[in-house]
Amino acid sequence: MTTIAVIGGTGKEGKGLALRWAHAGHGVIIGSRDPARAQTAADELNALLSKNRVRGLGNAEAARECDIAVLSVPYEAHTTTLETIKDAVQGKILIDVTAPLDLDNKRKTRRIEAGSAGQAAQQFLGDGVRVVSAFQNVSYTHLSNLDEQLGCDVLVCGNDKDAKKQVIELARAAGMAAFDAGPIENSVVAEGLTAVLININIAFKIKNAGIHITGVPRS
Amino acid sequence: MTTIAVIGGTGKEGKGLALRWAHAGHGVIIGSRDPARAQTAADELNALLSKNRVRGLGNAEAARECDIAVLSVPYEAHTTTLETIKDAVQGKILIDVTAPLDLDNKRKTRRIEAGSAGQAAQQFLGDGVRVVSAFQNVSYTHLSNLDEQLGCDVLVCGNDKDAKKQVIELARAAGMAAFDAGPIENSVVAEGLTAVLININIAFKIKNAGIHITGVPRS
Repeated sequence: MTTIAVIGGTGKEGKGLALRWAHAGHGVIIGSRDPARAQTAADELNALLSKNRVRGLGNAEAARECDIAVLSVPYEAHTTTLETIKDAVQGKILIDVTAPLDLDNKRKTRRIEAGSAGQAAQQFLGDGVRVVSAFQNVSYTHLSNLDEQLGCDVLVCGNDKDAKKQVIELARAAGMAAFDAGPIENSVVAEGLTAVLININIAFKIKNAGIHITGVPRS
Repeated sequence: MTTIAVIGGTGKEGKGLALRWAHAGHGVIIGSRDPARAQTAADELNALLSKNRVRGLGNAEAARECDIAVLSVPYEAHTTTLETIKDAVQGKILIDVTAPLDLDNKRKTRRIEAGSAGQAAQQFLGDGVRVVSAFQNVSYTHLSNLDEQLGCDVLVCGNDKDAKKQVIELARAAGMAAFDAGPIENSVVAEGLTAVLININIAFKIKNAGIHITGVPRS
């Protein structure tokens, strides 16, 4: 089994993914700037699982001890968090879940100098890290209900085919279908979909709009 | 009924949309740089419909005679075509269907200086034109089969709520559900989805991958 560190895993979505992966049998580390808060979140998940499968650590230590790191922080903390874990994730896969939204209007995508948060992460971490962008549009409400089959699909972008394959497997372990959506440049789409789905959530007074890829054979 | 000009309507997708709208009872003009080619495409559609509802004109004249213009050209022809119709579309709605792809790799989104093709159109045409971005991800194969209910949804972006409402109605008339996806900045998502869906089409050896919005009530 893989050891997965969810950096910023005390946040809602990170915690939801951590829960699903721990439930699927993976070792999970919650990372936070504050190790005590990380441990509190880990205890919470272990109680839900009735198993001791999740632990909490500081972000850098979490990144050091994992096989695969998942970055789930607000875009405002993207660069500073990447600085903290840069050395620790060399040679590993980093899954970037960050979705930049306009600072004044969360219904609007935010333009990133590098093109997308995923591209910014790949540039910042260098070629020694295989950055894969995914899981931006997953609903926490659904993730936290372990019995629920997730109706929303995951778009997986990155420049390394094998890394994307591993992330598609992790999506499956968490109960979602995932698709190779092309190179890291295409992560602007998955990131921006967050703002699109926020528009739809507000218009319909719902919380869980998602996307489903149509026209593909499903097993 | 609305008179709709499909600028670049001799292309596959433009022609598919024109067919659906004419079938729904709208007056449709096919626009092309070459009026004779436009008329040939119009004749073809009228034959399919067994009705005389579509006519062909040059792009500028088509834009002048319509209520709503639809721009369906390769991104390489985007600016030059906008120049041709700029005066004629003042005061009207322009629906931009353009999806910029990387020149060397159509699996990759292309970065646009303005942010997206939709934003570029809005900037170029000025505030006198209400630009709405939509219909980038609609499959021609499905459009051309009039009996087929379309499984793929349409993301509608723009800065004018009433214009988006009219486009959502036009989508419905063409057999598709459409959603207000936010301001014109968000069109980078709908445009980029084209590259994402090309990746999925190639991987699964299919032609018609699309998206469906999940979690919303449907009537």
